[in-house]
Amino acid sequence: MKKDDGIDKKDKIDLTGSSVVERSLTINGLKQKTEKETAMKNITKRGEDYSQWYQDVIANADLAEHSVVRGCMVIKPYGYAIWEKIVAILDSMLKEMGVKNAYFPIFIPESFLEREKKHVKGFSPELAVVTHGGGKKLEEPLVVRPTSETIIYESFSRWIRSYRDLPFVINQWANVVRWEMRPRLFLRTSEFLWQEGHSAHASLQEAEEYALKILNEVYVKFAHDFMAMPVYTGQKSEGEKFAGAFRTFCIESLMQDGKSLQAGTSHNLSDNFSKSFDVSFLDQDGQRKNIFQTSWGVSTRLIGGLIMTHSDDKGLVLPPKLAPVQVVIIPIRVTDQAAIEVAKSVVKQLAGFSVETDLRDYLRPGEKYYEWEKKGIPVRIEIGPKDMENRAVVLVRRDTGAKESCAISQIPQRVEEILQDMQSSLFAAALKRREESNKIVDSWQDFEQALKQGGYVFTHWCGDESCEADIKQKTKAVSRFMPFDAREEHGDHLCINCGKKTVYKKRWAFALAY
Amino acid sequence: MKKDDGIDKKDKIDLTGSSVVERSLTINGLKQKTEKETAMKNITKRGEDYSQWYQDVIANADLAEHSVVRGCMVIKPYGYAIWEKIVAILDSMLKEMGVKNAYFPIFIPESFLEREKKHVKGFSPELAVVTHGGGKKLEEPLVVRPTSETIIYESFSRWIRSYRDLPFVINQWANVVRWEMRPRLFLRTSEFLWQEGHSAHASLQEAEEYALKILNEVYVKFAHDFMAMPVYTGQKSEGEKFAGAFRTFCIESLMQDGKSLQAGTSHNLSDNFSKSFDVSFLDQDGQRKNIFQTSWGVSTRLIGGLIMTHSDDKGLVLPPKLAPVQVVIIPIRVTDQAAIEVAKSVVKQLAGFSVETDLRDYLRPGEKYYEWEKKGIPVRIEIGPKDMENRAVVLVRRDTGAKESCAISQIPQRVEEILQDMQSSLFAAALKRREESNKIVDSWQDFEQALKQGGYVFTHWCGDESCEADIKQKTKAVSRFMPFDAREEHGDHLCINCGKKTVYKKRWAFALAY
Repeated sequence: MKKDDGIDKKDKIDLTGSSVVERSLTINGLKQKTEKETAMKNITKRGEDYSQWYQDVIANADLAEHSVVRGCMVIKPYGYAIWEKIVAILDSMLKEMGVKNAYFPIFIPESFLEREKKHVKGFSPELAVVTHGGGKKLEEPLVVRPTSETIIYESFSRWIRSYRDLPFVINQWANVVRWEMRPRLFLRTSEFLWQEGHSAHASLQEAEEYALKILNEVYVKFAHDFMAMPVYTGQKSEGEKFAGAFRTFCIESLMQDGKSLQAGTSHNLSDNFSKSFDVSFLDQDGQRKNIFQTSWGVSTRLIGGLIMTHSDDKGLVLPPKLAPVQVVIIPIRVTDQAAIEVAKSVVKQLAGFSVETDLRDYLRPGEKYYEWEKKGIPVRIEIGPKDMENRAVVLVRRDTGAKESCAISQIPQRVEEILQDMQSSLFAAALKRREESNKIVDSWQDFEQALKQGGYVFTHWCGDESCEADIKQKTKAVSRFMPFDAREEHGDHLCINCGKKTVYKKRWAFALAY
Repeated sequence: MKKDDGIDKKDKIDLTGSSVVERSLTINGLKQKTEKETAMKNITKRGEDYSQWYQDVIANADLAEHSVVRGCMVIKPYGYAIWEKIVAILDSMLKEMGVKNAYFPIFIPESFLEREKKHVKGFSPELAVVTHGGGKKLEEPLVVRPTSETIIYESFSRWIRSYRDLPFVINQWANVVRWEMRPRLFLRTSEFLWQEGHSAHASLQEAEEYALKILNEVYVKFAHDFMAMPVYTGQKSEGEKFAGAFRTFCIESLMQDGKSLQAGTSHNLSDNFSKSFDVSFLDQDGQRKNIFQTSWGVSTRLIGGLIMTHSDDKGLVLPPKLAPVQVVIIPIRVTDQAAIEVAKSVVKQLAGFSVETDLRDYLRPGEKYYEWEKKGIPVRIEIGPKDMENRAVVLVRRDTGAKESCAISQIPQRVEEILQDMQSSLFAAALKRREESNKIVDSWQDFEQALKQGGYVFTHWCGDESCEADIKQKTKAVSRFMPFDAREEHGDHLCINCGKKTVYKKRWAFALAY
């Protein structure tokens, strides 16, 4: 990149408005790439172009950007602050359940993956492979972990000895790599951050219970109570389950465009891996037995879910419990010492909240409102000269846009009320949207039609992998889950696609998906 | 690995004693490897074999182990809990200074490294290189980050626009890879965990001040106040500075074997990288100028320093402020309900501390004492039948081994006193050891002799890279730093090795090093 290009590039950017800057980047003559910088661009309306809206929300809130390394993302400070909140809460929930953290190598010998046949088949197309290290070609290539079952269970085979060691549960916060040809920020990136938990149990039944416990007591609770994102829980089909799992359970949530997002999974691995990695224990009866395992994870994809569940045409909307900044204070006149003093006293009053005061003197109040609105700050406090005469301020709530005058003495109470109401309103709105778009169908015509309209489509299905592939080819949709809480229906049921009699009493949920 | 081998391996382990288990591992017929499992082995004395002592302390405290992936380590839950404490404290110190976290891709295009000539030269021999991704050979190989200056500054070149954006400071908690042929747990591993901070400033002077501020207000403070590890601060020689830096500052600490450990570094990068990556800003005077940068980091190596600063022949010793468990309560008779009740009430009394109660019924009290001692728990509380008659318990302090009877009502106060005293005693002992081993020399004979005895050797030196290489070849030692707090000496000084007149008024510190 020539120096002149750099100067041009920067000077073209219009700090106030909607210009799109074309960026041209040459990496040592090897690659030529053109990217649009969308920062500070206006936000496309959801109804016009949902995919562009999503990108615009991210760019305007300054959450993340595509990296020059294809498929990878850069998580910018404000986006990372949301991830830190997610990590802190999930980590403490897991620790309360007795889960301990550990750290395993990022590299996995290729041969390790190959020990579990379905596992290697599932992950092979997505691998990044290190062939050279320390200036030499490696004897055996190393794979950058796409997930860590194999490298972790090799350790388990040495660590777990007797029934006294069970259940054995660890978790790892780490980066993983799954090569992605069509990256989308937070949703699909070649590198992403996640937690992956792994447990070992004495029986299949205990593994099943633990996989469900994590799903219900950690993932569902976190999605509902913190993300304000209603999720369905259910079991994945044979075709959609984790490569190497006995059963995969999931939480799935409906996004505003009617597509489903798989937000977290928990797998009962049975003894599939323990047989391959010789993870066994000496039981109380003196017998050596294979252990039964689970693994479960959520990732930076949750941020994508958060964005698409709550945000609107003005930009990001964050549930108060995950907002890095819950309240922003904007004195209308930053040169007015009295207003600054009021701002300081409000900050003190709001000690239990995360608060920022915007004292920048080179932006007009309206520009500041616009900026913080796009960042999804739940409550804005405006301190104007007239308000101050009445010992009051103006509170503006992000999701509804509602403005109210509030006596300075009442601020902590009102802020608390607004944040609580916003947290529950966001959940209620998302739940209502999902419920209203749910459809129950029994004919192929209705099924196709319903899928096009968006939302979950509940129908009877045979569960066969080949039938699912056929449905996908015809509709782009796959089964999302067999819902746990669905009621069983009496009588015989025929598959919506192939017409075969199904073995299930419950309907499956189908949807277009991320 | 055949299943039978697995059974044999595990059954050979003697849970109570000192057996060493030979482990034979075949990775899909490609590699054959034999490793000694040292868990539960007795601890070699420092005086007999320091290197073996270090490994034994780690194995017996269950902190970490070598991975099957050459050069990488597995950080086990107890070792990782120490790292989590380090991260939590350092992260809050950095946040108090206004530093924000972000996340950048693990992969760096090879050509990025090449843009800064000294940088690429310094890191080339240590790189792990990804040549294949998603089943295809990559157009341009990707390097697994050994450090992230280049990939981060490419982002800076787009993010930083005007003087209003400066100083711009971000930090990243991440894994990095530097190929290591002779790995040592925590001290030198091919993959390690660290934080790397990066800042951009309007002038060289501001960059210098910021690099020193991080060193003094974060790294020194953390080492002294939390790790109880006395450190010297100083500047690195031209030969020892960071590849690409203008100046490198460091904290260095003396280990118990008389060797120096570089525990953290902070670099003034001047505009070396900003010129290569076109990171510039529009100044108040309307001129576009290159920024001046700093970068700084500490890593899981700190855990190695922690171990070697305080531990003894009985195993790990942890400063109370970094101990994941500060107090362990051991009822002598786990079947005695009265003792259990006392233990519960003590846990409640010690609500502000991190406490564990050991109620395992298959270990004798002595075995438990031994185990927790090796894990470095600062205070052990024994609840015996006789103590209970007197409404008392026995407190045992890990570093001194001192035992005392303590009335149950006095436990919180005494525990607090002991922990505080232990924290400051550990620091004082390490400082005393360092000061007593310091040597000031002015002849080559004394210099060689002093280096052999261990500790820092202060001498006049010319500072030339070639002279330093010569010294290293003769003595295995290199310069560690030019101490900030050393006094200047009047008159002319001759280099201890080459005899040339030096340009420095201060003496350099030399030592054997990790």
